[in-house]
Order: sequence, then C-alpha cells, then structure tokens
Amino acid sequence: MTLLNKLAFTADIAEKFQGRKASVSKEVSDSVEKIIADIRENGDAALFNYAEKFDDAKLTSSTLTVTPEEFDEGLAQVDADYLRILERTKAQIEEYHAHQLETSWILPKESGEILGSIVRPLQRVALYVPGGTAAYPSTVMMNAVPAKLAGVPELVIITPVKSDGKVNPVILAAAKVAGVDTIYKVGGAQGVAAVAYGTQSIKKVDKIVGPGNIFVATAKKLCYGAVDIDMIAGPSEVLVIADEAANPKYVAADLMAQAEHDKLASAILVTTSDALVDKVNAELDRQVVTLERREIIESSISNYGAAIVVDTLEEAFDVSNDLAPEHLEILTDEPLAKLPFVKNAGSIFLGEYTPEPLGDYMSGTNHVLPTGGTAKFYSALGVYDFVKHSAYSYYPKSVLETFKDDVQTFAKSEGLTGHANSIKVRFE
Amino acid sequence: MTLLNKLAFTADIAEKFQGRKASVSKEVSDSVEKIIADIRENGDAALFNYAEKFDDAKLTSSTLTVTPEEFDEGLAQVDADYLRILERTKAQIEEYHAHQLETSWILPKESGEILGSIVRPLQRVALYVPGGTAAYPSTVMMNAVPAKLAGVPELVIITPVKSDGKVNPVILAAAKVAGVDTIYKVGGAQGVAAVAYGTQSIKKVDKIVGPGNIFVATAKKLCYGAVDIDMIAGPSEVLVIADEAANPKYVAADLMAQAEHDKLASAILVTTSDALVDKVNAELDRQVVTLERREIIESSISNYGAAIVVDTLEEAFDVSNDLAPEHLEILTDEPLAKLPFVKNAGSIFLGEYTPEPLGDYMSGTNHVLPTGGTAKFYSALGVYDFVKHSAYSYYPKSVLETFKDDVQTFAKSEGLTGHANSIKVRFE
Repeated sequence: MTLLNKLAFTADIAEKFQGRKASVSKEVSDSVEKIIADIRENGDAALFNYAEKFDDAKLTSSTLTVTPEEFDEGLAQVDADYLRILERTKAQIEEYHAHQLETSWILPKESGEILGSIVRPLQRVALYVPGGTAAYPSTVMMNAVPAKLAGVPELVIITPVKSDGKVNPVILAAAKVAGVDTIYKVGGAQGVAAVAYGTQSIKKVDKIVGPGNIFVATAKKLCYGAVDIDMIAGPSEVLVIADEAANPKYVAADLMAQAEHDKLASAILVTTSDALVDKVNAELDRQVVTLERREIIESSISNYGAAIVVDTLEEAFDVSNDLAPEHLEILTDEPLAKLPFVKNAGSIFLGEYTPEPLGDYMSGTNHVLPTGGTAKFYSALGVYDFVKHSAYSYYPKSVLETFKDDVQTFAKSEGLTGHANSIKVRFE
Repeated sequence: MTLLNKLAFTADIAEKFQGRKASVSKEVSDSVEKIIADIRENGDAALFNYAEKFDDAKLTSSTLTVTPEEFDEGLAQVDADYLRILERTKAQIEEYHAHQLETSWILPKESGEILGSIVRPLQRVALYVPGGTAAYPSTVMMNAVPAKLAGVPELVIITPVKSDGKVNPVILAAAKVAGVDTIYKVGGAQGVAAVAYGTQSIKKVDKIVGPGNIFVATAKKLCYGAVDIDMIAGPSEVLVIADEAANPKYVAADLMAQAEHDKLASAILVTTSDALVDKVNAELDRQVVTLERREIIESSISNYGAAIVVDTLEEAFDVSNDLAPEHLEILTDEPLAKLPFVKNAGSIFLGEYTPEPLGDYMSGTNHVLPTGGTAKFYSALGVYDFVKHSAYSYYPKSVLETFKDDVQTFAKSEGLTGHANSIKVRFE
C-alpha cells in the first residue's frame, strides 16, 4: 500500500493543506449563543443547571472549586515517576520561556522629556482543560508555565467535572506542578461564558486560553472582545524537509506521530530524493501496524499527506515557506545552517535527533502553535501572550513649547480644533 | 450649563463606559459577506464594479495603483512646512518605537542542545486609510512607521479613490514620508477582501491594520483568520486623574479634545477635589464656544462624560484601573511617582505639559490604542504587531537519549503511541 502520494506542489495543494478545519454549524453557534446569554443573565444558577444537564453532576457554590483535600487525593493517585517527569518538563519549559520575558523601559531624553513602556502581566487568566480522554497534562504545562513566568497573579483552570464530582488526577498533578491552585469544575461553553463575564462565584478574567471541542472554541470566539483569547487552533500538521541522506525510518515515524492526532491532521514530506519517498512508504507500511491509532493515521496520511519531490533544497524551502507549517522538521545535511532559509514556521526541529514529539513534551519550546498557514503572521504561545504594554510620557513645559505650533498645525489640518485648543491653553 | 455630571462610581458606570460601541446590523454584515464572496470569486472585475458603484470612479488594472507621477503631483500640493511636520513626527515615532525592536536569540546549552527563537517581520501588510474628510495623515504615520521599523518589506495602503481618480494629497505625503510606496485605490469592504484573499492585480497580505467605517471594520472581522488584523477600535476615551492643584483650564481643554472625536467618545474626570469639578465645568462653558465641534463635544460629555469625586488618590487609581482607559492623564503633584499605581491603561500622560493631543501627534508614543476597557489585556500598536517568532531546537543524539524514556512515558500516558514510536525508532 502506498500511503504517501507523490504530488506536484500547486496552489490547490496549498489550499487543501491550509483549509482543513471543522466547520461550525448554525445549530452549534445558536446553542452556544443561548448558553452564553443564560450565564450572563442567571450566573451560578445557570452554571449548575448545565453541570447537571451535560455532565450529570451536582454542583453548588461550595463544591465548585477543587479543595486542597481533593488536590491531595488526586495527587496520591499519580505515581512518583510521573510527577518527576512533570517537574522535568516544567523546568525545560521554564528555561526556554524565561528568554521571552520583557522588561519595562525608559527613555530619558537630554532635553528633559521622559518616555517609556511598562510591561505588566494580565491580572486574571483562565485556562480551559478538556475533560475525559482528551485531557492532555502536557497542554496544561505549555499554557500555565508561560503565564506564571509572565507573572499572572490569578491563573485559574476551568474543566468539566466528572459525574462523580471529581477532576482527572493527572490534570490535578499538572496543575499543581505548574503552579495553578484554583480549578473550577465547569467546562463547555458555559464554563467559558462564566469566566468571560463572571458569575456570583467566579470572577471575570482578562483572557481565556487552551484547547476545547467545537462548543468551547465557538464560545471563545463569541466572547472575544469581552475578554482576549488565544488563537483558535486548527488541526495539527508537520512538514518534513529531507535530502537523500535522511533516514526513512525516522521520516516515516515522524509523519505518523503527527498524523495520529486527528483525521484532519496533515503530514507532508518535501524532498530532493524520489527514492526516499519509496523507502518512507515502505517504512510507513512496516511501522503503522504497530500503532494504536493506525486507522486515524492511515486516513490522515492518505487524505492530507503528500510527498512533494523537488529539484533543489531551495525549492523545498519555497514550498515550506508557502505552506507555513505549524511544525517543520529539517532532516538534511547541516540542519542548523538551513535556519536562514525558513521564513514561515511555528516551530523548527533541526536534525535527526530532534523529532517533533520531543517538542510536544520536553525540549522546552511551546507546543501551542499556529496552524493552517497562520505561521505567516502568528507565533508560538509564549510569555508575550500574558503581558501588556502601557506607554507613558512626560514632557516639561520647555519641550512642549518647541512642539506647540507643529501640533496645533497638524491637529487643525485634521479638523480637530479641540486638540489644538488643548495645546493652546497651556501657553495663554 | 453643567456639562460634566458628578457621579458616584458604580458597576453601572463601568458598564456604560466600556460598552459604548456602534452595533453592526444584520443588513451590514450580510452585505459585507456578499461583497467578500464576490471579490473571492470575481477578483479584479468585482473590485472595479464596486469602484464604479460606490466611489463613482472608473478603475482598471493599469490605474489601480498610484503612479510615481501621481505621487509627485500630490506632493506638489502639500506645503513644505507640512512636510517638515510630517518628517518631525516620523522621527519622534521612530525614536520611541525603536525600543520595541526584538532580537532573535539562541540558547546554546553546555550539554550540546541549541534552542532559540527567530524574529521575522511579516512579509506583506496592508494599511487601510479612510477616504474623504476622515483622512488622518497622523494615523498613516502611527501605523506605517512601526511596520517599517519591524522590517515589513511590502507595506501597502488601500484607500478609496475619489471620483476624479485621485487620492487625497496629504495621504500621499504621509505615505511618502513613512516609506510606503504602493497605494491601491480601493477602499471599503471590497478593498479589505481584495488584500485578504488576493485578486489578479493585488497580492494577498498577511495582516490588515488601520481604521475604517462600519463596513471596513466588519470586513476585517470577517476576513480574520485568513489574515491577521489589528484590534477593532471602539470610540475613543480619556480619564483624567487630578488633585486640587490641577489647572481647571487644562483639564477642561483635555476632556474636550477627547470628546470632539465622536458622540460616543468618553471623557471622565476622577478627582479628590469637589471644587475642581465646578471650576472645570465653568471652563468647559467658556472654552466650548470657541471650538468647531461644539455640538459633538456637548453631546459626548453630557452622555459619556462624568466627574467622579473620590476621597483619596488611591481610590482614584482604583477607579482608573477598573475602567482601564485608552488614555490616562495624571494631573497631580509628582506625576511620575504615580506610575506604579497604574495597572491598566493604553497610554499614560504625566503632568500638566503632556496633554493627550501631544501623544496623538508628536510625543513619539503610538495613538492606536486599546479602547473600552481592553487595556486590561491589549497594548498600544507597536513594532511587536508586525513580527512573528519561530521557535527552533536542535538536540544531539546524546541529549535526546537522556529524554527518551520520559518522553515515551509521557506520550503513552496521553494515548499517543505514534509520538512514542518516533523517539523509539531512533534508538533501535
């Protein structure tokens, strides 16, 4: 079986690759709109109704938050080695993200004016954590660690409660390690609305981050403006640039690691070696049978996978820059030397011992990344997503005087005589 | 007449202040949706139809772009002193924004791995410039200068064409000074759609910035995702914190400078001095009769203005931090020493010789700022809005080996055996 089809690179390929997304039906968006309106009107009462209706759980204002005892109980169920791995992951993420910290600055000019910018963390951030099988502790770490590094004083998690009123122990463990100590047992669109607008028991936040199903994503989009949100993530993708010396075993494994996420995931090989494609296909056949998510992998690779054979590496980078992949692996001779040729990519993995899954967990870089070609204008999630800048300026009278005529002329040219007046009255 | 009403600060006030916005009717959003679909399907042909329909102008692919001759012709109509003011404005903006430049970084670890982040400018950005009377050359400067500083190689302006096929000379002058040399004579929702999706004559861009009417704002919102956009700006606002020593003449002038923008603009005085409010009201009455936009000013101050008298400056900062104003003026004793108490504000103007209008034009800070309380999570427009970060990582085999077991354990715990496999095959 030939899983990976050889395709020429055309605009259609780019469109197919960048256009993968689950569409939101009118039904979903209408029902989310209703839920948001209900939470805004009825607060806690509505929230507890939805917990009963959707999660089959009884919640009250006193059982809404995970207690220290519940934390302890959950942590006792997680083994020590797993906690160690979480701690190690945190240290790796921290070391990398510490380089993203920005400082407030000041520009004191010799003529007397002082200008600058103050960097401050957002005050309250909510991290959405999906319930059930889609609970990824690694994602808790990738979101929470940069937020804590930024200095966010109130970082809360919202997550659906299980019918026994509990929260997944690995989520509790990841939260604890990452430094999050408030967890609200509310999920879905109603959880998003609760933190976006506030209820009697839940404080309004400034920003909501984290992945979720179509209801959660739609709710985030609809609450955008009242609060800030992170990017709406699309299906995951990898693009591998490989030359003839690349190891087909590794290439195949890395394509499948991406493909297993989702039937809409995409895995693309761009190579100067036609022979490599055949070897990779043979490896795909050999390895796929050993993997639990074989069906998903076969579906996504045959639908959204491709092998694009090009004449030169230069051409390979052109293709990659056009597609702007979320993850880019460079499996060529001297991979580090290829960095200058990457224009658009969320995260770049260099050389044969930097497989993308390392970055999903422990290399230190963030795994929340722009998808669907948006790496042309978006960045990985980082500390910068949890701060804001306030400009400040101070002018002495003597310096304002040197600007007074020009500002008035400029303001009048725009028809704003009130602006000009504000300068004028200071020199009357 | 008492323009400025004394009000107690309540949640209602906050809601009224933060909730000012023009609503988008179903009619507007439907018609914008149709225009976008038409441009996506018919490209240039649709664009030229709309120019005829909405701007009463005949456009072809050869007259779409402002020519060097048109630039010269336009510049000849602008007087030399005005050009000098534009140049001075540019220098001021550049000096401030140069401090926002970010550098790519590298973290070379002693164990052999290399991680880092590459900062690159967006490749193509479009700046929307409204036509007619709402043409603000200062806004061209505030958007274009940071984009050019960031290194954006292709910065284009889109702006509605006048019926004589020309573009406003002051816009041409501001574009020239700011370093923009491509101007497309297309505006409205159709102009936004053209740069968002591309047509035969216009290249798709990565981001669209700049103000516009309700059709333009709606089009930007609907194209968001296909391209990045800047914030959707709401009505402008100022909050002045003043003590008993503040000069009522200046306070009144600055409130009116904000109020003249728009009937939805808001101007709020928060003061420890009840007596000051009366003096400010007297000054408002005295000064407002001299201003061209008197009607707008009177309307916005009586509807969205307020004087909030508090007991202490600490309380004044609490109110201000709750409202998170776009512009904050601090007219108190030792204004610089008050900086630490500001948590949320777009741009802070310190002391009596730093009136907000100075910042609209020439202080160097940006005048594109978060409104309606969004300064809690957004920043002024800056160089950071025109760059993106790509993470990169390189691991030697020896270091990957120290992570291989942990990554596999972590991946398997999340049910991702394909991820584990990608590590495993490298050590078989």
